[in-house]
Amino acid sequence: MGIQDAIGELSSLLGQRLSRSKSDLELHGASETHFPLTPPDAVAFPKTTEDVAQIVEICARHRCPVIGFGTGTSLEGQSQAPEGGVTVDFQHMNQILEVSQGDMFVRVQPGVTREALNEELRATGLFFPVDPGANASLGGMASTRASGTTAVRYGTMRDNVLGLEVVTAKGEVLRTGTRARKSSSGYDLTGLLVGSEGTLGLITELTLRLHGIPEATSAAVCAFEDVPQAVETVIATIQMGVPMARIELMDVDSVRAVNAYAGSDLVEKPHLLLEFHGSESAVAEQAEIFGDLAQDFGGSGFQWAAKPEDRTALWSMRHNAYHAILASRPGARCLVTDICVPISRLAEAVEACRADLQSSDIEGPILGHVGDGNFHACLLFDEANAEERARVLEASERLVDLALSMGGTATGEHGIGIGKRRYMEREHGAGWAMMGAIKTALDPDNIMNPGKLVPPRN
Amino acid sequence: MGIQDAIGELSSLLGQRLSRSKSDLELHGASETHFPLTPPDAVAFPKTTEDVAQIVEICARHRCPVIGFGTGTSLEGQSQAPEGGVTVDFQHMNQILEVSQGDMFVRVQPGVTREALNEELRATGLFFPVDPGANASLGGMASTRASGTTAVRYGTMRDNVLGLEVVTAKGEVLRTGTRARKSSSGYDLTGLLVGSEGTLGLITELTLRLHGIPEATSAAVCAFEDVPQAVETVIATIQMGVPMARIELMDVDSVRAVNAYAGSDLVEKPHLLLEFHGSESAVAEQAEIFGDLAQDFGGSGFQWAAKPEDRTALWSMRHNAYHAILASRPGARCLVTDICVPISRLAEAVEACRADLQSSDIEGPILGHVGDGNFHACLLFDEANAEERARVLEASERLVDLALSMGGTATGEHGIGIGKRRYMEREHGAGWAMMGAIKTALDPDNIMNPGKLVPPRN
Repeated sequence: MGIQDAIGELSSLLGQRLSRSKSDLELHGASETHFPLTPPDAVAFPKTTEDVAQIVEICARHRCPVIGFGTGTSLEGQSQAPEGGVTVDFQHMNQILEVSQGDMFVRVQPGVTREALNEELRATGLFFPVDPGANASLGGMASTRASGTTAVRYGTMRDNVLGLEVVTAKGEVLRTGTRARKSSSGYDLTGLLVGSEGTLGLITELTLRLHGIPEATSAAVCAFEDVPQAVETVIATIQMGVPMARIELMDVDSVRAVNAYAGSDLVEKPHLLLEFHGSESAVAEQAEIFGDLAQDFGGSGFQWAAKPEDRTALWSMRHNAYHAILASRPGARCLVTDICVPISRLAEAVEACRADLQSSDIEGPILGHVGDGNFHACLLFDEANAEERARVLEASERLVDLALSMGGTATGEHGIGIGKRRYMEREHGAGWAMMGAIKTALDPDNIMNPGKLVPPRN
Repeated sequence: MGIQDAIGELSSLLGQRLSRSKSDLELHGASETHFPLTPPDAVAFPKTTEDVAQIVEICARHRCPVIGFGTGTSLEGQSQAPEGGVTVDFQHMNQILEVSQGDMFVRVQPGVTREALNEELRATGLFFPVDPGANASLGGMASTRASGTTAVRYGTMRDNVLGLEVVTAKGEVLRTGTRARKSSSGYDLTGLLVGSEGTLGLITELTLRLHGIPEATSAAVCAFEDVPQAVETVIATIQMGVPMARIELMDVDSVRAVNAYAGSDLVEKPHLLLEFHGSESAVAEQAEIFGDLAQDFGGSGFQWAAKPEDRTALWSMRHNAYHAILASRPGARCLVTDICVPISRLAEAVEACRADLQSSDIEGPILGHVGDGNFHACLLFDEANAEERARVLEASERLVDLALSMGGTATGEHGIGIGKRRYMEREHGAGWAMMGAIKTALDPDNIMNPGKLVPPRN
């Protein structure tokens, strides 16, 4: 591959907006989690779709790998460069292009972060609900099919991306979707590209569905004697049709870590953290139904956080749980698992996970998007301890097998990247080869984010 | 192509379950709407996935076209056989395989109809909401990405199919999706296959998301002086976050047709028909908010139908509107348009459509899923009158151009089939070629429903 030839041409095109500095290469080759550094050969900073199209066209001609980069917060190495090449960093493509209040959508460049978007939307009475915790870029969130705490009510990126502009592997600019709320016109290319992790093209623009800021919002916490009690309460609440906006599980280890980190005083039992959205009366009714059910299932200490500052404190505690867990063992790194199971199997899966980690002598506090059946164990390890690192990786693999044995998936929201590619055949069987055939058809020279998601080329 | 060789082998495999009777061929080559008869060479009636795999394997070997068939209620000729071949009729694959109350999903064979499914589910407190009007098969509904009156609340087939079993163009059996409620594991093959109209494979099993039967349901009707008033009311209600379950528009011509057919006495003005789902108090609150807004925008005669029999009568009237419109001109056929526009442009689109039809001297009452921006004009014509038929087709094409000029789509829910293939390049540009590349990769010999949706092969 003519990576150096590509870089020569790119340098003429972009000037200062092509970087080969060590710090840029390392930043773009690093991971938030446990993968070794794999830097690209250069980092490009486009400002326009036309820039991106020219970058890809040049790379395609020289068969040089092209990797998209948002904020680098993905957890399976999606933005690393294991085969070198050129990373396309979208930080300068951060404009909100159009807000349509009547049609409740927004058109943005891929480098806009979800927090910047919601800040900008505040005056409109609308908001973008998908919230993976990190202040990720919207292009990155679409690429990994992110979700998070609000998916139980508002869906994942799959449900909230209405259309895309992408630069294909040939450097062609293509639009998918329309401004209408639904369509049955042909293959769902938007849906195919969301979650494709930059392996089929680079997203240069997104049209996103917005939602009305609810009239009323209330948050609550509730303690349970054990995880099955908490999960049974969630199942019953969902079956009653209560449209909870968030419903999060913290196991007792997470509660301890959070108490220590944030100075909170949650009782040392598993907790559900909840949020209700709706009219004043609907929110009150939802909370009452939940409270009654929680009591039936053995919940205790049901507490409201109706004031905005209390709610903010609650969710900030939840969003900082990852840092709280990391801080519980100074110097440790963390492998975050991400299995998702049918909700009826969730209590069993969490209990099996806890038992496995205990018998493997691994610290792994558990956090879960329990309304989706999705939970994370934060497996702590010392990077210098090869044996412990291996033990953690093996436990992570057993968890994937557990999820698959229950009819679940290896990843609810973090995606495949480098880290979960080896589970793809187990999960999808012949479907993985179908993904490979699509990839080969749309990127015959395998330049788009090679080494990720799809089967290796022969 | 060795169609006759394929049929010889299929006859040995299936015996009586392969039909070449004239009546079967004509039934499977006919359309609900205006397309000429294009019969297949044979009709196969599989009972199992294994049957389907063998049928496709034989057809693949002989390069014989394979067309899926549910109930034949598609509206763009999706189940017709313009290149001959073998139609696979799923009427004997009509088993409900599994109902999971805890996980709120059902696993069905493709020949199960939506009414049969909901009948079976009644005792569980769950239901499948997607309702295109016709009692279509669920396999067919997935293939065309159907939706209908409830999409505004519950989404389309895109949102309600969790996983599929399909037989690929090679005759291989493949499963997509999991039993978990979300996943970010690789390309969304389920989403790619939903709406692919049998051009990438045949659906042999579906896992569908179920919803809780709401505690309370109320329906209502409201008259407006004109269509813009009605649409403004809808936009305001959606922006208030009122989760309406159905919100349907009938223009004054539809109201007249329905009154004449069903003996109803709706005042001769545009109407909205609504349904609210939720708890008793939530439904009352939703209806009150809507009623207030309707009054602000000039609505009148807001009437409740809280009793189940009144609701049934209301929706039966709506579902029979197509027949009422056909009956308004005895002997006529109907071309049903299906454009979908951003909701902010809906009033303008409906008015432009009415003006166009009037100036073209075409009778075309309008019905709309107004919460989605999707509406149908039922263009009546005499099949024996070639001039009128051509006039209707031209009007239909102008409507598509209108939708595209407003950022909408040529089809909100009926799909592409034969009828709308010529608009694909206009709507999707280079995206249509991308669909063709995917099709070629997954069905290199073009045996799966040829002549539909994707670009013609060179």
